[in-house]
Amino acid sequence: MTQLRFALAQIDTCVGALDANAAKVLDYSRKAAAGNAQVVVFPEMTLTGYPIEDLALRRTFRQAAWDKANELATQLNDDGLGDLFVVVGTVGTDRKTSKPRNRLVVLHQGVVWAGYDKHFLPNYGVFDEFRIFSAGDRSVTLDVDGATIGVAICEDIWQDGGPVADLATKNIDLLLTINGSPYEEGKTNTRFELAQRRAAEVNAPVIYLNQVGGQDDLVFDGGSFVVDADGTLIERSPMFMENLTFWDFDSAAEHQAKAEIVPELGPDEEVYTACVLGLKDYMAKNHFTGVTLGLSGGIDSALVAAMAADACGGENVWGISMPSMYSSDGSKDDAADLASNIGAHYEVQPIEPLFNAYQQQLDLDGVSAENLQARIRGVIVMASSNSRGLLAVATGNKSELACGYSTIYGDAVGGYAPIKDLLKTRVWEISRWRNKAAAAGVGIGGLKIAGNEDGNTGIPLKDGVMIPVSSIEKAPSAELRPGQKDSDSLPEYALLDKVLAAYIEHAHGRADLLADGFDQVTVDTVMRLVDRAEWKRRQYPLGPKVTALAFGRDRRLPVTNAFRE
Amino acid sequence: MTQLRFALAQIDTCVGALDANAAKVLDYSRKAAAGNAQVVVFPEMTLTGYPIEDLALRRTFRQAAWDKANELATQLNDDGLGDLFVVVGTVGTDRKTSKPRNRLVVLHQGVVWAGYDKHFLPNYGVFDEFRIFSAGDRSVTLDVDGATIGVAICEDIWQDGGPVADLATKNIDLLLTINGSPYEEGKTNTRFELAQRRAAEVNAPVIYLNQVGGQDDLVFDGGSFVVDADGTLIERSPMFMENLTFWDFDSAAEHQAKAEIVPELGPDEEVYTACVLGLKDYMAKNHFTGVTLGLSGGIDSALVAAMAADACGGENVWGISMPSMYSSDGSKDDAADLASNIGAHYEVQPIEPLFNAYQQQLDLDGVSAENLQARIRGVIVMASSNSRGLLAVATGNKSELACGYSTIYGDAVGGYAPIKDLLKTRVWEISRWRNKAAAAGVGIGGLKIAGNEDGNTGIPLKDGVMIPVSSIEKAPSAELRPGQKDSDSLPEYALLDKVLAAYIEHAHGRADLLADGFDQVTVDTVMRLVDRAEWKRRQYPLGPKVTALAFGRDRRLPVTNAFRE
Repeated sequence: MTQLRFALAQIDTCVGALDANAAKVLDYSRKAAAGNAQVVVFPEMTLTGYPIEDLALRRTFRQAAWDKANELATQLNDDGLGDLFVVVGTVGTDRKTSKPRNRLVVLHQGVVWAGYDKHFLPNYGVFDEFRIFSAGDRSVTLDVDGATIGVAICEDIWQDGGPVADLATKNIDLLLTINGSPYEEGKTNTRFELAQRRAAEVNAPVIYLNQVGGQDDLVFDGGSFVVDADGTLIERSPMFMENLTFWDFDSAAEHQAKAEIVPELGPDEEVYTACVLGLKDYMAKNHFTGVTLGLSGGIDSALVAAMAADACGGENVWGISMPSMYSSDGSKDDAADLASNIGAHYEVQPIEPLFNAYQQQLDLDGVSAENLQARIRGVIVMASSNSRGLLAVATGNKSELACGYSTIYGDAVGGYAPIKDLLKTRVWEISRWRNKAAAAGVGIGGLKIAGNEDGNTGIPLKDGVMIPVSSIEKAPSAELRPGQKDSDSLPEYALLDKVLAAYIEHAHGRADLLADGFDQVTVDTVMRLVDRAEWKRRQYPLGPKVTALAFGRDRRLPVTNAFRE
Repeated sequence: MTQLRFALAQIDTCVGALDANAAKVLDYSRKAAAGNAQVVVFPEMTLTGYPIEDLALRRTFRQAAWDKANELATQLNDDGLGDLFVVVGTVGTDRKTSKPRNRLVVLHQGVVWAGYDKHFLPNYGVFDEFRIFSAGDRSVTLDVDGATIGVAICEDIWQDGGPVADLATKNIDLLLTINGSPYEEGKTNTRFELAQRRAAEVNAPVIYLNQVGGQDDLVFDGGSFVVDADGTLIERSPMFMENLTFWDFDSAAEHQAKAEIVPELGPDEEVYTACVLGLKDYMAKNHFTGVTLGLSGGIDSALVAAMAADACGGENVWGISMPSMYSSDGSKDDAADLASNIGAHYEVQPIEPLFNAYQQQLDLDGVSAENLQARIRGVIVMASSNSRGLLAVATGNKSELACGYSTIYGDAVGGYAPIKDLLKTRVWEISRWRNKAAAAGVGIGGLKIAGNEDGNTGIPLKDGVMIPVSSIEKAPSAELRPGQKDSDSLPEYALLDKVLAAYIEHAHGRADLLADGFDQVTVDTVMRLVDRAEWKRRQYPLGPKVTALAFGRDRRLPVTNAFRE
């Protein structure tokens, strides 16, 4: 009979930051030991960060990671933590082929102990692991105080067969999985059902430890959990925060003790929080402390500014109103109100004098003149970014990006696009949720998110409102010519977004879309818009790509692609 | 004893263009039959184009490709070409897993006959095939008039084992390989040595049929060839052109007859031609007939303009001189001379009035003011692109992109960057070569290149000079502040380019670079520049990426990457 205390260290790592990641492991290991844990578990590729892409192929990096693992093992031992089993992920090297491997190691008694190499290397959607790693070919169990613990890394439990099937024959007491599983809507449940299946397969509890935080265009949501052999959820870590949860395992118990399970977040709160964490970590990991963006008075820039205020505080947001001759007074007021609500810096830079100066030389008309307005704004936003050292954020949503309703080098300017994965109808829903939360007292930075673990409830909002209601309610317009409305060029968003979801995310062809019940005119309009937008993006491939509905999942098409359904 | 006439159809396909690709197969099949060939061979993924990336994952596309193959087989038969064996590549579907496959089929007697699926799926550098295809698991031989022909697709001959090892046991008469092998400097020889090895392995001649043409950021150079069982080169198609070469095979002969082998191109001609073909096809496949670019009077924009003139004719090039208060008279003259030499449209758009208009509102200084100048130019170039329907081309070279010596949304603006894979020292060499060719009578569009197959020797250059000598000879300067020289910010290019090659292409770490003999100050300077440039690109990931020396090979690193050597 063995009783073991596990510490689930759900941390936020940074790719390439070996020193910082190792320091965090040391810190959490101390806390784990102070809480009397025998085993502390960290996420996939803890030391290197994840996903590391072709950085894994750099020999000098793999050597540095290996040195860091050994140094950390020594330091843990020197600090009196030698008895603790510290389970971390890192990059290894296949001795035979010299190719990189996605590896789990245990730091114990001052040495780097045991090594399990990920078997299934995902190579779809956002994943490119088969490109950079060679596959491990054996399962590994750890003996900790007489308990037999099988290990697996992320994709290993998403595929049938392989190491888990092998472990199922070995009468293990527990299956321990370390993960770097990016956020998607609805994925919490998918992961849970998966872990239930594996628990039944190995007839033992499963620990599912996930990383948390934004990395590039991905967001990892944490939400680590433990499921008992019979499929009962017995422990869960919060989403979107670093966290250390303790869980006691008793090898003799028929059923493991069940902790109180915190309720899940609502779908709107979940998505909003994911967007904010993505932006916050993108800033932190690229050493930005503030952002700048254009505030048009429309809902997209208002929502992005609200997210930015939640990510870094309103005082670190520089909003620029850049009215043209076609901007309505309502839009200018809404932009000013938003900035005032969130306590952002606010400046007004009319673009008419600049537009006139260009037109004196270029004399453009039609779409060229509309694009000129957008590009003048892009230059101003980038001037703000350069001169103040701020991250420019782009405010495009998925519906307009998919339909090409934006200007490259214009409103598409920016290093990060927080809402590029949100369809327009979702932008409205999420904005309404944020206002509801504001009314309920969730001030700026009051989200439950990495960095806010101390229970910070946020800075109160001015008048308790975040996003001006008129920005949400009014008909969307780019205001690049008199009386322009989005609905002049696009189907109504309620319909458009449904077609986009089917066409882009679910890869429905023309016949499928008609069978889905969409009318022929709409189907042909949307397909033409999306295909033309893709073609425009192909002409200027440096522009933003459209991703499918899930966060960061790309529709990876060739630049030159003549295929039409 | 079998005698067979093969037609090597080295064609330029377009991704997704099922109709156009099939029409080309039909056309070349007619020519092959007219030349009494029994077998005509086309490149890898002929019908779909290559590389097709995630387009392969679209079920509707695979169905359309399958329908097209059947339609083509019927049409060949209806045209009286049923006896011809037409070997084409296409996308298939794995019956078990429903995953796409990279497939070779034979169209014969009106049906789609035989099917071989690529075994080794490259997943490195520019290749992502393991991501999209499942691997074939059996070798295939064709019986043509009693001759046993083994088949393989591209990567299958680059790896040991697999189908070729299997074919080596089957006493084949010939190994037929269809390829989509992108151009790299020096690759002609690599491919030849590889084919020699495989010929020895299967003890039979090897046909190496490669695709030709630009596709996205890759250039396929053709250069198809036949090597005898003993390693002798017996036939070779030209590089960079569509071509139909006939080759007679005699199964009874101990040595196959050797044709006269055309000499190889010189290294400068080869690289220049590759760049022009890449641009020409990018334009054609994206439906552009002309380009626009800024002409600074410097060597980079001069070389790109010369390439553009060779790609689409000087009359389809719109050069814009955009002098600032810091532009020298020499630069303005050189820009005008270049435009005149190549017969390009030329306009002058001074940026000072626009710069002053911005400065009245923004009051920038330092690098922000320098970037502002570059971005005003970007807006003007894009206005030219939009209003005239021209492709904007970016003029950055690899040295300056690697070191971050350019402005995002400024001089980096453009849909295609013809010289982004050329280090600055190579830019000078290639420019000198083009002038030498011009002196020898190679006029505009006189390159041996796809589209010029009819022996067009080009339009004579004005005064027989292409690139102004002073653009080549003068010290490089961005002219964004008084007296500025590239050497103020960068090591001399002769040294810089050597360090860049070692650091980027060969992945040498700091210790390696010192062991290479570079001095410590230079090593640290260059590493800091490159790492900082990567960091800047990471902040604005929509900007161009640095590729390694080989055409199109990416250094794929995560956006957020804190690792320093």
